[in-house]
Amino acid sequence: MQAITERFASGWHNPIREVITHPGSVVVLPVLPDGRILLIRQYRHATRQHLWELVAGRIDAGENVRQAAARELMEETGYHAQRFRVFLDMFPTPGFLEERMYVLLAEKLTAGEAQPEEDERITAKAFDRAALERMIEKNALRDAKSIAGLLYYFRFLAGRKKKN
Amino acid sequence: MQAITERFASGWHNPIREVITHPGSVVVLPVLPDGRILLIRQYRHATRQHLWELVAGRIDAGENVRQAAARELMEETGYHAQRFRVFLDMFPTPGFLEERMYVLLAEKLTAGEAQPEEDERITAKAFDRAALERMIEKNALRDAKSIAGLLYYFRFLAGRKKKN
Repeated sequence: MQAITERFASGWHNPIREVITHPGSVVVLPVLPDGRILLIRQYRHATRQHLWELVAGRIDAGENVRQAAARELMEETGYHAQRFRVFLDMFPTPGFLEERMYVLLAEKLTAGEAQPEEDERITAKAFDRAALERMIEKNALRDAKSIAGLLYYFRFLAGRKKKN
Repeated sequence: MQAITERFASGWHNPIREVITHPGSVVVLPVLPDGRILLIRQYRHATRQHLWELVAGRIDAGENVRQAAARELMEETGYHAQRFRVFLDMFPTPGFLEERMYVLLAEKLTAGEAQPEEDERITAKAFDRAALERMIEKNALRDAKSIAGLLYYFRFLAGRKKKN
């Protein structure tokens, strides 16, 4: 597994920041102009149930973090985003996997047509903050990466002034 | 993999609740009498770095969720807790693992002696809420299960009145 150092302007905590890219994954938190957030629902065989989750997927060979996020968002919801920003980078299972997970805010969205892969049956739906917090509190949203990403967003980012 | 249905008084969302036990894992959020929370720090080979995390581990054969939590807490920090409550149950990697993760609040703590396993070198330390929120915001705490568990606790549980 080759590690490549990539510079990219995340602009979140640091204007420029070093990121070691490897076949990790992306998690996308798409915020619509009205503030609602897009979630997807799909059947997860491993868990034997349908789950609400943020858009997510592996980074393909040759892709950088932003490209993977744009591709996954388009495939699973049909949306395009003009702006992506990594706001969290975390390890989903540090005990045994080196997988690194980049969580990106996707903004300035425009709707298109979803292109799910053969084996994916995905429903996308927009929720407001109150609905999402209720789902998390009631354990109706039980995917760990989505809980972490959404609660981080609500606690540290939502409602802050944007620079543009 | 045998699924066993176990009734236990979680007392959180429902007085009694059905839980399907399987070799899942527990995550423990230990709250000291002064409100500070115990975290552990250990080297994670898969991630090639030291990470701050909540106490966590697999549920052993024959154990229930609470027993696994008590054992992990004792082994990794030396602390015993008189009260455990599941407040979140989530899937760390629903895309490919059936692993289910129970996050427990551990209260009424008394200190003892840590008993780490051979290959574990663990440091335990207590942090207050402000310090933990800063660590999460600055990406100095980057373990997904710990981010999810701590932010859930701060958002929905901390500061609420206790019944006893």
